[in-house]
Amino acid sequence: MPNQNVVVLVGGVGGAKLALGLAQILPPQNLTVIVNVGDDFWHYGLKICPDADTILYTLSGLVDKNNGWGVSGDTVNTLEQLRVYGGDSWFRLGDRDIATHLYRTERLRQGARLTQVTAELATALGVNVRLFPVTDDRMETIVHTQEHGALAFQEYFVKHRWQPTLTRLEYAGSESARASAEVIEAIEQADVILIAPSNPYLSVEPMLRIAPLRELLISRAVPRVAVTPIIGAQAVKGPAAKIMRELNLEVSAETVARFYGNVINGFVTDTVNTPFVVDGVRTIALNTLMQTDADKAALANQILHWIMSWD
Amino acid sequence: MPNQNVVVLVGGVGGAKLALGLAQILPPQNLTVIVNVGDDFWHYGLKICPDADTILYTLSGLVDKNNGWGVSGDTVNTLEQLRVYGGDSWFRLGDRDIATHLYRTERLRQGARLTQVTAELATALGVNVRLFPVTDDRMETIVHTQEHGALAFQEYFVKHRWQPTLTRLEYAGSESARASAEVIEAIEQADVILIAPSNPYLSVEPMLRIAPLRELLISRAVPRVAVTPIIGAQAVKGPAAKIMRELNLEVSAETVARFYGNVINGFVTDTVNTPFVVDGVRTIALNTLMQTDADKAALANQILHWIMSWD
Repeated sequence: MPNQNVVVLVGGVGGAKLALGLAQILPPQNLTVIVNVGDDFWHYGLKICPDADTILYTLSGLVDKNNGWGVSGDTVNTLEQLRVYGGDSWFRLGDRDIATHLYRTERLRQGARLTQVTAELATALGVNVRLFPVTDDRMETIVHTQEHGALAFQEYFVKHRWQPTLTRLEYAGSESARASAEVIEAIEQADVILIAPSNPYLSVEPMLRIAPLRELLISRAVPRVAVTPIIGAQAVKGPAAKIMRELNLEVSAETVARFYGNVINGFVTDTVNTPFVVDGVRTIALNTLMQTDADKAALANQILHWIMSWD
Repeated sequence: MPNQNVVVLVGGVGGAKLALGLAQILPPQNLTVIVNVGDDFWHYGLKICPDADTILYTLSGLVDKNNGWGVSGDTVNTLEQLRVYGGDSWFRLGDRDIATHLYRTERLRQGARLTQVTAELATALGVNVRLFPVTDDRMETIVHTQEHGALAFQEYFVKHRWQPTLTRLEYAGSESARASAEVIEAIEQADVILIAPSNPYLSVEPMLRIAPLRELLISRAVPRVAVTPIIGAQAVKGPAAKIMRELNLEVSAETVARFYGNVINGFVTDTVNTPFVVDGVRTIALNTLMQTDADKAALANQILHWIMSWD
């Protein structure tokens, strides 16, 4: 991929897999990772960015590979002591992880933009690809549920382990939030735009809601390719399939491709999925289940070679 | 000491020793510990109360006995990761310790008073004596130095290891801060008032500056006894002697007794100190160097028995 600028839009664990695959095969200056902020929240006064942290820990090699998030071998002594105090302990705060939150919160308090702080964390961790939060503005995904009404994202996702029945999603603040200058420039200069196999509703749509992202993507006459998060009518991880059922959608890769609509002009489905055709969207079936780091690099490689073959 | 209410004013490590001695020999309902807040500060967005924490950890048995502060066996994984990020690491943040700060900060943000939060922490740690910060208001000890100008207390004490030359002390906010209702009530109901062998200038004076403490103490017709922090022209720990020299004061127990003036009517000096007489102040010489927990109980016991013998 000589001198091709690749931009990938990612959420958390699923996004981190493709990001790591791409990072293994592309020169760092050619890869830009744009990460969702809809999951970000404040907890114990700490600004926590779960998706960005997962990407940072994954690309730096710090990640706990069993979970796909958090720092490998991290202790939870602060969390254990918080339990002694009767404090909330539903969100797993690892001790090294807390440093990330403390550093970020302190720098934001000092007036730094989230984009700048994220770059500082990446540099300190030896991550040499560009990692940009989609916006420096506030935007929070709110999950409206049958059982508990409106839940802040992490309450839905972690505290209630995504078990409540989703009735609708709200992207609070998305009307006024603006994509950062860095994100806009990266998309304007991209030769290839990828959407990682992240949750379309929870991770990708929040980014597309942030002006001018959707329109800017559609305007770019370059390959814009999403990778299916659905393999064989199931989500690889997390609530994507469950949410599709709750939204009365067919659980399929085709549903995802149609959801992205004209934002994409290419789609990577899985070899085990039922084939489908969507007008204006080129499709390829690959083995998209990334288990090892080699799998991740292989899939990234196959996707980019397929895209390079487009006439 | 049947049904004698004892109140002890304390700073950090030195104060914790006497507080632990008293806690070993008094029924918990008869002991109230009033702790300095002049050392409190904000760091990484955390409200840290070093003196209260030292008392909490000491009375709960959690304390690192080698240092006299911090949690025994605590890890510093958050701090190590903060160093990776290039963050400030001059203040030792233990991982369990951070939980104390996070819990306190969160409860303050929710609107709880510092007094209430301190009580919650004490209860959770099994500390059954009353522990009250002297005020819920802001009051910060500022150390003016030759080398660095005005230093926030922890910068002077920890970052610069109390090496700069003190020119004067400022108790910022002390004019408007008020002692809490709990502190006032405890002093009003005290049968014995003790001032621990804490630093007179850095730990005790900040409390005495908070209205109506000095006047209230003076008004109480009960034994009001300070314990010398100076043994043989040296401070047991910390900068008391150094500060006395910098303030052109003789480094002696007598200087301390005269500094407290009419706030006290009794003084415990050490057997190795030069004897002295201060009008209106009864004096006894005891072995005040508390090394073991048994030493602490023994000194507390001797002091209270001496006081009970007053006619």
